[in-house]
Amino acid sequence: MGEQQKKVSIAVIRRLPRYYRYLGDLLKNDITRISSKELSQRMGVTASQIRQDLNCFGGFGQQGYGYNVEHLYKEIGNILGLYKGYTTIIIGAGHLGHALANHTGFEKRGFKLVGIFDIKKEVIGEEIRGIKVRHIDELEDFIKSNKVDIGILAIPKEGVCEIAQRLANLGVKGLWNFSYTDLDLCAPIQVESVHLSDSLMTLSYQITQNSNDE
Amino acid sequence: MGEQQKKVSIAVIRRLPRYYRYLGDLLKNDITRISSKELSQRMGVTASQIRQDLNCFGGFGQQGYGYNVEHLYKEIGNILGLYKGYTTIIIGAGHLGHALANHTGFEKRGFKLVGIFDIKKEVIGEEIRGIKVRHIDELEDFIKSNKVDIGILAIPKEGVCEIAQRLANLGVKGLWNFSYTDLDLCAPIQVESVHLSDSLMTLSYQITQNSNDE
Repeated sequence: MGEQQKKVSIAVIRRLPRYYRYLGDLLKNDITRISSKELSQRMGVTASQIRQDLNCFGGFGQQGYGYNVEHLYKEIGNILGLYKGYTTIIIGAGHLGHALANHTGFEKRGFKLVGIFDIKKEVIGEEIRGIKVRHIDELEDFIKSNKVDIGILAIPKEGVCEIAQRLANLGVKGLWNFSYTDLDLCAPIQVESVHLSDSLMTLSYQITQNSNDE
Repeated sequence: MGEQQKKVSIAVIRRLPRYYRYLGDLLKNDITRISSKELSQRMGVTASQIRQDLNCFGGFGQQGYGYNVEHLYKEIGNILGLYKGYTTIIIGAGHLGHALANHTGFEKRGFKLVGIFDIKKEVIGEEIRGIKVRHIDELEDFIKSNKVDIGILAIPKEGVCEIAQRLANLGVKGLWNFSYTDLDLCAPIQVESVHLSDSLMTLSYQITQNSNDE
């Protein structure tokens, strides 16, 4: 399967969590099997797209039967690495850091928060959901004695490149970047950015266009 | 320009905020003019891509001169609707709602927060950056007497579809949706979703693939 997955486009990969979400909802509603046609109607995509996407990972459907929901849900979870027991730390205990630390949905999907770091005296020692906020100077020692797979960056863009480099040097595997800058050229580490302002501006473009069309 | 913009693909639109961000950084560094080649090196895309993207909106560059940074910055801001004076309200004053209300970056880009709503007694009347949290029952009256362009949905997915419908009925132009569900089929209104768990799972996929490759 490794060979096949390498060729998968980022567009397909970005759709996988959405399949996972819809299949999870089906399971909750005790739906055990579904045709690509039914799934496509619920998701608002074509059945052919679903078949194509899932074929990138080897299929999973059976002619005339459709998909076994639980099996497909688990397979996609496996492809997404949700059973790897990945651990996270949050850098930045500001408003966004707090919100992310308090978001229990990530743990439901298998991501365990193990540490929170900041530089501001006022927040060091504070506990968020039972996890103590530590000073960023403790980062190296902490990661040497605790497995940390993902660094969640919830700090302003100034200084974030240096933190990205430190985390990469410490063997952290990926960065979930909320700082409003791209880290691609910063350190040799996988980065997934959430640029909230970019998303809001995209919405702004769309409603501006709609108003122009009226 | 309206005619031309209609044909612009979502991929190009999603790159516009990034151009805006890089141009803003150039301006801050007093760089007044830049070639598409220089800009492409900074942004890690090809010069041809930049020229193609900007040509969707009528160009802006001059052969042998490059781009006037301030002019291009303002033009893209204009295309994105950043000078329209769009107003926002946040539905949900939980951790994420607080973080979004306290995020001053959105106002810097022209989006003014005018109201916050919740259903929980404990938070009604609380002030976040000078804005009082109101009960959701006041939504209709508030929007009738205040211009509201964008509804920011920071509530759990249960009940979000009903809120989306109420906001659409009240003439709100767009929804910035943080609830973990798609609202496409919910109400006839422009929706831009930020699915944080999907983004984290995409990162998880990438680091899983990298580990498999080792």
